[in-house]
Amino acid sequence: MTLDVLSYATQSASDDLGPFYVKRRDQRDSDVVIDILYCGVCHSDLHQARNDWGNSKYPMVPGHEIVGRVASVGSAVTRFKAGDMVGVGCMVDSCQHCSACAKSLEQYCENKHTMTYNDVDQHDQMPTYGGYSEKIVVSEKFVLRIPDGLDPKGAAPLLCAGITVWSPLRHWKVGQGTRVAVTGLGGLGHMAIKLAKGLGAEVTLFTRSPGKEADAKRLGADKVVLSTDPAQMKAVRGKIDLIIDTVPYAHDLNPYLPTLALNGTLVLVGYLGPVDPVVNSVPLIMGRRSVAGSVIGGIAETQEMLDFCGKHNIVSDIEMLDIQHINQAYERMLKSDVKYRFVIDMGSLEKDRKSA
Amino acid sequence: MTLDVLSYATQSASDDLGPFYVKRRDQRDSDVVIDILYCGVCHSDLHQARNDWGNSKYPMVPGHEIVGRVASVGSAVTRFKAGDMVGVGCMVDSCQHCSACAKSLEQYCENKHTMTYNDVDQHDQMPTYGGYSEKIVVSEKFVLRIPDGLDPKGAAPLLCAGITVWSPLRHWKVGQGTRVAVTGLGGLGHMAIKLAKGLGAEVTLFTRSPGKEADAKRLGADKVVLSTDPAQMKAVRGKIDLIIDTVPYAHDLNPYLPTLALNGTLVLVGYLGPVDPVVNSVPLIMGRRSVAGSVIGGIAETQEMLDFCGKHNIVSDIEMLDIQHINQAYERMLKSDVKYRFVIDMGSLEKDRKSA
Repeated sequence: MTLDVLSYATQSASDDLGPFYVKRRDQRDSDVVIDILYCGVCHSDLHQARNDWGNSKYPMVPGHEIVGRVASVGSAVTRFKAGDMVGVGCMVDSCQHCSACAKSLEQYCENKHTMTYNDVDQHDQMPTYGGYSEKIVVSEKFVLRIPDGLDPKGAAPLLCAGITVWSPLRHWKVGQGTRVAVTGLGGLGHMAIKLAKGLGAEVTLFTRSPGKEADAKRLGADKVVLSTDPAQMKAVRGKIDLIIDTVPYAHDLNPYLPTLALNGTLVLVGYLGPVDPVVNSVPLIMGRRSVAGSVIGGIAETQEMLDFCGKHNIVSDIEMLDIQHINQAYERMLKSDVKYRFVIDMGSLEKDRKSA
Repeated sequence: MTLDVLSYATQSASDDLGPFYVKRRDQRDSDVVIDILYCGVCHSDLHQARNDWGNSKYPMVPGHEIVGRVASVGSAVTRFKAGDMVGVGCMVDSCQHCSACAKSLEQYCENKHTMTYNDVDQHDQMPTYGGYSEKIVVSEKFVLRIPDGLDPKGAAPLLCAGITVWSPLRHWKVGQGTRVAVTGLGGLGHMAIKLAKGLGAEVTLFTRSPGKEADAKRLGADKVVLSTDPAQMKAVRGKIDLIIDTVPYAHDLNPYLPTLALNGTLVLVGYLGPVDPVVNSVPLIMGRRSVAGSVIGGIAETQEMLDFCGKHNIVSDIEMLDIQHINQAYERMLKSDVKYRFVIDMGSLEKDRKSA
């Protein structure tokens, strides 16, 4: 059965998004059909919609922070039933047999993972469309369970912003007393503070803008360091075990590296491209420090994070949005004018049903 | 007691090295006095002699790959006696109480480690002078034991070149079947091949010069990849767990990063300075890869390496040198014209005794 679903799509890099019907791929026995309730708005939605990375396919329906209720399940589905509150993140498939997939690190699939939108299904070659839509069809293996009691609106951004910072926090073994610093206080950064704090870390925010202290502390930061102030930076030399760098544009890493302790790591999660200006190797060599990268997270660790958030009642700070205002929301995101994530109330899509 | 010892020193950045008497610091109860037999010649000797790093103090006696026999020991020395074959590497002291020193990672001492030359003793403020000399006075804690049966000439370069690559091999847990690649086939690189192979790794040499294959394989490399050939580089994409990068000048890391497997690390050990051209974050992020650095090694791991080399009969490939030819040797090193390390026969110093 193929579904025609009302969505918000863009037809080219220069178009605004607007109501549009797309065909969801044929349902397979292992599929879950989800009525989408909420969808977070990620910076990469905007980049993809506008073809900033040069690989966009149109029409495009963005959105990979999806929360909804199961509408129906295929005959082979065992873990979900109609009515369950579920989530879908950045991926909807992977090869399932390489060594990365074997460890449920599907984000590093050696063959091909299928992205939630702007991609093509590996089995029937149908385009994938994201969560700015009334329904989505997803293989059971890539569907996450939203814990009971967790606000589903605030949970939506966990599916990308949350897991993107959770995965490195766990990989670099952050726990009680680990000294974690976060650079950039946006969608990813505010989740990094909350999750690191939840894991028991001592959390520092590095920021270039004075005036973020109160908000950072409310989110869980123990300390705020103005990274443009050499005296403040010197005071934390060698004091950080892991820096989660969420800054989404090229920026100078050199002031941060000496703040790492012996064996410390700065992990880039927000910026894809040349690390300009050049990094100096001296602090790396003289403290066995590392600059690393990390992308989203695997399905097992995404579920682990959601369960952790359920237990600790951690959700994203959000501003709700009707889908009709998505284009203005993109403009506000470009100015970092959101605390800290837009989430679309997909119920608002009803207003477009007749006009689409 | 202060010793006046015949050495080879340089008096300024532009002078050649020549015979010169220096005063060794007063001996303390915990000190070992060593008759130096052999001293390896490290690239950094040349950089320091010529003030390439801007921190040179003159007169300077270079040399930190020292092997000799114990001449006498202080009253508190328990581990050594006259006649023992011993070694001294890059460090002769450290604070001994910080968290790095507590782990015998004195190379990362948070306070002050004292270098074997071009430094000042922490207790009596006497200048330190290196191994191009007839004798040296070193605290027992920084003296290493050279295993019986290991050629002491070939063992000398283990004290810097050897430990500089051993430490990252051990820190990144190289063992049976680990896929290690080495860039740069010089003093450090040839030791990296031998030691990685000794640890059971599958070893690849990345080289920009064709014609190194036979020598690399003789040293223990399983494979030689011409890093300027995109087809050869593509064939090893994702196939390396750890790259030991020994190249001693700024060079482009970008071609190497995609050869790393998931969680792989490229560790810089040979180049201090701006990592130019800029590194692109995409392969870091898309494979959770790291660029790291590492410097020499701690005293405990240096002894561990020497014992390992004793067991596996691993030494450096060397060319013996009379001290009178040290200036010509520096010129040849600048042209990489040595396979793979010069070692000074300190007996040759006798020829200068009357003239100095």
